Amino acid sequence: MSAKTVKAAVMVAPGKMEVWEFPLPKPRRGAMILQMEMSGICGTDKHAFKGEMILYAGTEAEQRGVFPCVKGHENVGRIVEMNGPYADYDGRPLHVGDRVTMCPNIICGKCYYCRHVFGWPYCAHNKTYGVYFRADRWPHLTGGWAESMYIFPGSFVYKVPEEMPADVAVNIELMTVTNNVDRAKGYMEFASRGFGLMDTVLIQGVGAMGIAHLIKARVLGAGEIIALDTSDFRLKLAKEFGADTLVNVNKTTFKERLSIVRDLTDGRGADMVIETTGLATVVPEGLDLLRRGGTYLEAGNFVDSGETTINVHRHLAAKNVLLIGNTNHPNSEYYRTMKMMLRYQKQFPWKKFTSHKFRLEQAQKALEFSLGEKALKVVFDMTNKRKG
Amino acid sequence: MSAKTVKAAVMVAPGKMEVWEFPLPKPRRGAMILQMEMSGICGTDKHAFKGEMILYAGTEAEQRGVFPCVKGHENVGRIVEMNGPYADYDGRPLHVGDRVTMCPNIICGKCYYCRHVFGWPYCAHNKTYGVYFRADRWPHLTGGWAESMYIFPGSFVYKVPEEMPADVAVNIELMTVTNNVDRAKGYMEFASRGFGLMDTVLIQGVGAMGIAHLIKARVLGAGEIIALDTSDFRLKLAKEFGADTLVNVNKTTFKERLSIVRDLTDGRGADMVIETTGLATVVPEGLDLLRRGGTYLEAGNFVDSGETTINVHRHLAAKNVLLIGNTNHPNSEYYRTMKMMLRYQKQFPWKKFTSHKFRLEQAQKALEFSLGEKALKVVFDMTNKRKG
Amino acid sequence: MSAKTVKAAVMVAPGKMEVWEFPLPKPRRGAMILQMEMSGICGTDKHAFKGEMILYAGTEAEQRGVFPCVKGHENVGRIVEMNGPYADYDGRPLHVGDRVTMCPNIICGKCYYCRHVFGWPYCAHNKTYGVYFRADRWPHLTGGWAESMYIFPGSFVYKVPEEMPADVAVNIELMTVTNNVDRAKGYMEFASRGFGLMDTVLIQGVGAMGIAHLIKARVLGAGEIIALDTSDFRLKLAKEFGADTLVNVNKTTFKERLSIVRDLTDGRGADMVIETTGLATVVPEGLDLLRRGGTYLEAGNFVDSGETTINVHRHLAAKNVLLIGNTNHPNSEYYRTMKMMLRYQKQFPWKKFTSHKFRLEQAQKALEFSLGEKALKVVFDMTNKRKG
Amino acid sequence: MSAKTVKAAVMVAPGKMEVWEFPLPKPRRGAMILQMEMSGICGTDKHAFKGEMILYAGTEAEQRGVFPCVKGHENVGRIVEMNGPYADYDGRPLHVGDRVTMCPNIICGKCYYCRHVFGWPYCAHNKTYGVYFRADRWPHLTGGWAESMYIFPGSFVYKVPEEMPADVAVNIELMTVTNNVDRAKGYMEFASRGFGLMDTVLIQGVGAMGIAHLIKARVLGAGEIIALDTSDFRLKLAKEFGADTLVNVNKTTFKERLSIVRDLTDGRGADMVIETTGLATVVPEGLDLLRRGGTYLEAGNFVDSGETTINVHRHLAAKNVLLIGNTNHPNSEYYRTMKMMLRYQKQFPWKKFTSHKFRLEQAQKALEFSLGEKALKVVFDMTNKRKG
Repeated sequence: MSAKTVKAAVMVAPGKMEVWEFPLPKPRRGAMILQMEMSGICGTDKHAFKGEMILYAGTEAEQRGVFPCVKGHENVGRIVEMNGPYADYDGRPLHVGDRVTMCPNIICGKCYYCRHVFGWPYCAHNKTYGVYFRADRWPHLTGGWAESMYIFPGSFVYKVPEEMPADVAVNIELMTVTNNVDRAKGYMEFASRGFGLMDTVLIQGVGAMGIAHLIKARVLGAGEIIALDTSDFRLKLAKEFGADTLVNVNKTTFKERLSIVRDLTDGRGADMVIETTGLATVVPEGLDLLRRGGTYLEAGNFVDSGETTINVHRHLAAKNVLLIGNTNHPNSEYYRTMKMMLRYQKQFPWKKFTSHKFRLEQAQKALEFSLGEKALKVVFDMTNKRKG
Repeated sequence: MSAKTVKAAVMVAPGKMEVWEFPLPKPRRGAMILQMEMSGICGTDKHAFKGEMILYAGTEAEQRGVFPCVKGHENVGRIVEMNGPYADYDGRPLHVGDRVTMCPNIICGKCYYCRHVFGWPYCAHNKTYGVYFRADRWPHLTGGWAESMYIFPGSFVYKVPEEMPADVAVNIELMTVTNNVDRAKGYMEFASRGFGLMDTVLIQGVGAMGIAHLIKARVLGAGEIIALDTSDFRLKLAKEFGADTLVNVNKTTFKERLSIVRDLTDGRGADMVIETTGLATVVPEGLDLLRRGGTYLEAGNFVDSGETTINVHRHLAAKNVLLIGNTNHPNSEYYRTMKMMLRYQKQFPWKKFTSHKFRLEQAQKALEFSLGEKALKVVFDMTNKRKG
Repeated sequence: MSAKTVKAAVMVAPGKMEVWEFPLPKPRRGAMILQMEMSGICGTDKHAFKGEMILYAGTEAEQRGVFPCVKGHENVGRIVEMNGPYADYDGRPLHVGDRVTMCPNIICGKCYYCRHVFGWPYCAHNKTYGVYFRADRWPHLTGGWAESMYIFPGSFVYKVPEEMPADVAVNIELMTVTNNVDRAKGYMEFASRGFGLMDTVLIQGVGAMGIAHLIKARVLGAGEIIALDTSDFRLKLAKEFGADTLVNVNKTTFKERLSIVRDLTDGRGADMVIETTGLATVVPEGLDLLRRGGTYLEAGNFVDSGETTINVHRHLAAKNVLLIGNTNHPNSEYYRTMKMMLRYQKQFPWKKFTSHKFRLEQAQKALEFSLGEKALKVVFDMTNKRKG
Repeated sequence: MSAKTVKAAVMVAPGKMEVWEFPLPKPRRGAMILQMEMSGICGTDKHAFKGEMILYAGTEAEQRGVFPCVKGHENVGRIVEMNGPYADYDGRPLHVGDRVTMCPNIICGKCYYCRHVFGWPYCAHNKTYGVYFRADRWPHLTGGWAESMYIFPGSFVYKVPEEMPADVAVNIELMTVTNNVDRAKGYMEFASRGFGLMDTVLIQGVGAMGIAHLIKARVLGAGEIIALDTSDFRLKLAKEFGADTLVNVNKTTFKERLSIVRDLTDGRGADMVIETTGLATVVPEGLDLLRRGGTYLEAGNFVDSGETTINVHRHLAAKNVLLIGNTNHPNSEYYRTMKMMLRYQKQFPWKKFTSHKFRLEQAQKALEFSLGEKALKVVFDMTNKRKG
C-alpha cells in the first residue's frame, strides 16, 4: 500500500484551490486511515478562501488561515486501516469497515480549560482537522477534502449508522454546533431567562448555520419562528424547514421589522434572537428586536467581520439581556446529534440541506460556488467517482 | 393632623434642589404614612440632577427625570399611621411603630412580565417611589427625601430589625441590586459558566455600586478580587471591604492592566468582570480582561452614557462570553439582603459605606457633594434633627 | 336571570354521585359566570371518589375530600356574565363570549411561598376550584362538573382559541402539569444531570398522566421512550402517542425489565424515569432502572398511596440521583401549553386522549367507569345536550 | 534505592491492622513516588474496618473492602522521585520537592460516563487509591497510610501550597466532597429550588463530613445553620465552626425538633437539609424537617447502612422536594477547595478539625479510636517520626 497515492483538494492560497496527489500515509501506532465519502465546505473555509482573519476561540493569535491546507472538517468516511485498537468517543472499540465522523477539535485534555470547561474546546493547545495542519508536511491528509484522511491517535471519533446517507451525515458537525440552543434552553428556568417552551425565536440569517439553529429550536419546543434574510431563496428554504414568518431585510425597513416582530409578540419583541449572518453590524438590530429579559445568541461571527456600535444602556443593561457568545461546539454532543437526525429525518430533509455536490477535481469551482446565494451546504462527494 | 406640614427636599429642575413644605397627606384606604429616618442619594438621582436620560428597564420612552420630584428610593422610616391593615412582603401584618423599608418599584402584578418573570420589575406599568411621581400632585411625599413619606396600598414593604442602625439600613436597596451576583453564581454550574467558588472577580469602578457587588461576591465565595478605579480614595475603601488587588486606571495603561490580570490568573483573564462605572466606554476593556468562557456582568449603565464600539467576533463570539445586562433588582430579595447585612456587619462596615449625612435643608449642597470623588453613599438624615 | 337554576354533578360522599340543581349565582363585583363546555375527571377526583387521603402540596392537614362538592378542575367554558372588568393571566381584558380555562389554584399572592416561589402553588392558603369548596354553600358552582361555573375575582383565567375543540382543550391543565419535564430539561446542563437531547426516558405507568409526560418529553427532544404498564390497552395507546418500547409489567419479571432497559442503554439504565402510576411501591424499581447520575421524576403520588422501602445507599447516594418530587403545576405555563397543543395537534391526537364523554346525568356511571383500565381521560360533556 | 524498605499500615481483615514493610517500588515510566506527610482515616475506611458493604458509585458489584490493603485516600506528601515528566491537574509541570495531594479516583477517561459526566467519577472502570488495590501485589504502596506512596501515570495530582500545614491539607479531599453544596446553590435560581442566600440549612450529623458541609454552606452564604447530632461534644465543635442552633437528638423528641425548626423558619421548615450521619433511618425525619419545595442533600450514606421506609406522597411528591443523592466528588474542584481553605483559615480552624494524630505503628489503636465519639478527623502523621 506504500506506493499508493490519493487525491486531495488543497487550498494553496486565498482564492486558489488545486488538486494534489499525496502518498497514502502509513498510520503510526494508534492512528487510522479513512476512505472518505463526503466532506462539507463550512463558513470558516469560505472565510479562509476569502483571506479573512480568525481569533480561534478567544486566543490572541490572529490567524489568516494555513496555506497550503487540505481543508474539510465536516466529514464522513469509512475506516480502511487501523494500527492498533481505537475506541470511539464512548470508549467502544472501532473496526475496519466502520463508517465514522470525527470532532475536528484535537484538544490536549490537560490544560486548565480542558480540565475545567468540559466538552467545549477552549483548549489552550487546540488543533483542528482541516484547519490547523499544513498540506506540505506529513501526514498531509489531515482534512476531509480528499480521497483518504489520516486520523491521529486519541481523536474523538463517532460511528455513523449505516442507514444514514452521506449527504445527511455530512451535516452532523453543523448540527452539533446548535448545542447553543440546548444551552439557552437550560438557562430558561432561571427566572424565565433563556428559551422556554413555545417561546418566539427570531433568526438573523438563514443560511446553513441559521437553518441548523432553526431546526434545533423546533426540536426543543420553540413556538413562532421568524426568519430574517436578504435572500428570498434562503427564506423559502427556511419555510420548508419550519419557519413561520419570513422577512426579507432588503425589502423592509428596520421600523417595519420592529413592527412585524412586535405584532407577533404582543408588543414585546422576540424571546430569543439568534445571530447567524456572520455580520457584526446586525447585532444592534437583533438586540432591538429582542424583548427585555430576552436571550441573544451570538453564533455567527466566528470570523472577524469588524466592529459594531452598541448603546450599553439601551442594548444591554436596560434590556436586561442574557447574551451568549459562541464559537465551536462540544465533542460530547455528536451522538446526541446523530440520534436526533435519525429520529427527525422525515420532518427535516437534511439531504436537501446538502444543496450541491462537487468532485475533488472541481475544487476551485466548488469554493467559488459556495460563496453564492444558492449555496446552502456545498460538499465534496468522493462516492460518485467510485460508483462511476 | 390635617393641618400639619412636613418638609421635603425637592428636585425642581436638573441641578436645582429646594426645600418645600407639604401638607401631610391623609392616607387613603390601605395606605400608610412613614416618619422617615434616612434616605440615600442613588446614582439615578445624580443622573437626574445632571439632566441625563434613562430608558427604564428597556422601555422606549426616554425619560429625563420628572420635575419637580421628591426623590429618594433607598429608604428607612417608621410607620406612624395606617388606614386599614397592611401586610409586609411575606404576608405578615405590619403595625404602627414598625421600622420598614420598601421596594421602590410599584408593579401592576398582572402584565405579561409580572406574570412570567418573577420578582424582576420588567412590569410594563412600573412606577417607582422617588422617581415617577410629581411633587406638585397629591400625595406629594412619594420619595424618601422628606420628613414623612406616603406608602400606597399593596407596595412591597419589609420590616427592618430594630438592631440595624439607619445608616446600615439605608444600604439595603443597594445591596439587593447585587442579586446580579447570585444569579451569575447560579449559572456557574452550567459548564463552568458564571461565577464559581474562589473564582477571580474583577470590578470596573468601586463606587458604592462597585463595593456593593464586591461584598456580595465575597459573601458568595469569590477568590481573588481585583478593583479598578480612577480614584485612590475609592480603591483604598475597596481594600477595606475586601479587594485583594487595586489598580488605578489613571496610573496604568491598558496593556499593564492586561498583564496584571493575566499574571493573577495564570494567563487566562478574570473569571467574572462586573461593570459598575456607568461608562459605556469601559465595556470593551472589561471584555478584554475576561477569560474566554467568562461572565461579564453589565450592572453600571442604568442611564444612557452613550455608545461604545465592540468587535463582535473578538469580544463576544470568540470569547464565548456569557454577558448579563442588568438594571433594577428583584423584590423577593430584600429580606435575604437584610439577613446578610446583619450576619456580616462586623466583616463589612456598612456604616462606613454611608460616608456623608446631610439634613434636608442642605439639599443643594448634598447633591453637589454627591457628585464628587469622596462620596460613597451620601444620605439625607432625618434623625439628627429630631434628636437635636 | 335570578330564578334560573343549573344542574351540577355533586360528589356527596365517597363512591356516591348525585345530580343537584342550584340557583345560578349572581356574580359579585369582579366575578364571572361561565357556561361550561367540558370538564375532566382527574386522578385526584378518582381518589376522592375512592375515599383516599391527600396532603395538599406538603401541608399537614390530611384531607379526605370535601363533601358535598362540585368537582372538576380541568375546565373549558364560555364567559356569559361579568360583573366589572376581568383580565386574563397576562393582563389583557376578557369579554363576554370568550372561551376560557382557568388555573384551579386560587392563591393568596402574599404569603412567603407566593412571594418567593413563583408560579408554583405552594401558597399557604391555597384553595382549589373543584376541590376545596362545599357545594352546599354559596356560590355552589365552584367546579366544572356543572352547566355553569362561578369564577371568583382575580383567578388565573386564560383564553382558549376558538379553533381548539373542547375535547382537546379539556386536557390543557393535565398537559401543564408536565412542566415537570421542562424543569428537568433545565437541570440537564448542570453537569449532565436532568434530561438532555435524545436521552432515554422511561415512564412508569401510561395512563393519562403518563402519556401527557410522554408527549412533553417528545416535544422537548427525548430519544428512546420506554413505556411500562400493566395494561396492553394503555401500552398500545402509548405507542400511538410516540413510545418506542412497550413493556407489560404483568408479563415480565423485574430482572427481565432491567435487561430490556440496559440493552437499550448500553448497559447503563434510563437517563430519566418518570413515575406516573400513583403507586408508592413502584419507586424502588424505578430507581433501579435509572442510570447512575440520572433523574427521577416523582409525578404520580399526588395522593397518599402508602409507604415504600428504599435503600438509601443504593437508591439515592450511590446512584447519585437527582430526584424531583412534584404535585401541582405553575400558573405561568397555561398559554405555553395551549400553544404547544395547537402546534402539535397533528402529531398528538389529544381528541383521542379524551377517551370517553358522559353527560352530567350519568355522573355515577362516569366516575365508576373512570376507575377502569380503558379510561384514559373521562370527561363531562355539557355541549352535547345543548346541541341535542 | 532498590533495597530500601518502607513501612505501611495494612488493613489485613475487618477489625485488624498490621504494620508491614514493603520494598520501595521503582516508579515505572510516567509514575512518581511521594514521601508521605499525613493521611486521614475516612468514613469509608471505618466502614471497611467494621466489615461493611459498599456499592461504589452505583455499580452493582457489592464490595466488602479489599484485604490486605494499604488504605488512605486523604493524602498529603512530597514528590521524591519521578520517572519522566508529570503534569498537575491543570497541565503545569510538577517537580521533585513539590508537595502534593491527589484525587483518589483513577478514571479511564474514555467510557460513556467519563465522556458525558465531567469531573464526577461515575467512570465504569473507576479504581481508587487506598481502596481498590491489594497490598500483596506490586506496587503495594497505593494508599497513604505509609511512609511512601506510589502514584500511577496520569493521576489527578494537585500542588499543595507550602504555607498550608499538613493537618490542614489532609482535609482537602473531605472539603472537596462538599461540592454538593455548590451544586445545590447552582440549582437555587431554578424557581427558588436549591439553596439561596441566607437560607436556613439543617445538618443531620456533625461529624467531620457534617462540619465540612457546614463550612461550605457558610462560605456560600447560608443564613441560620441548625446542627443535629447525638453527641454534645460534636455539637460544641459545630458551634465553633459556625452553627447557630444546636439540637441533641438524644435529648429531644421528633416533635420537639419539628417545633424548633419551624420556630426558626416562620413555620415552614428548613430550606435545605443535609444528611451526613450515614444512617438510612434518619432520612424520613430529615424530609419532615424540610420546607415544601426545599432541597434534601443525601451525602452521608456512602456505605450500605440498610433500608428505610418513606411515604412517597408525603416525603417526595407533596413535599415537592428536590433530592440530590451523592457519593464521591469532582476532580475539578481540588484547587478551588485549597484556595478556599487558605482564604478562610482564620475563620475555620481546620487544624482543629484534625483532632487526633497517630503514628503508623499505632494503626490498630488509631482505627479503633476513630470509631469513637471524640474522633472528628483522625490521621496518620508521618512527619513526627522524621522530626523525632
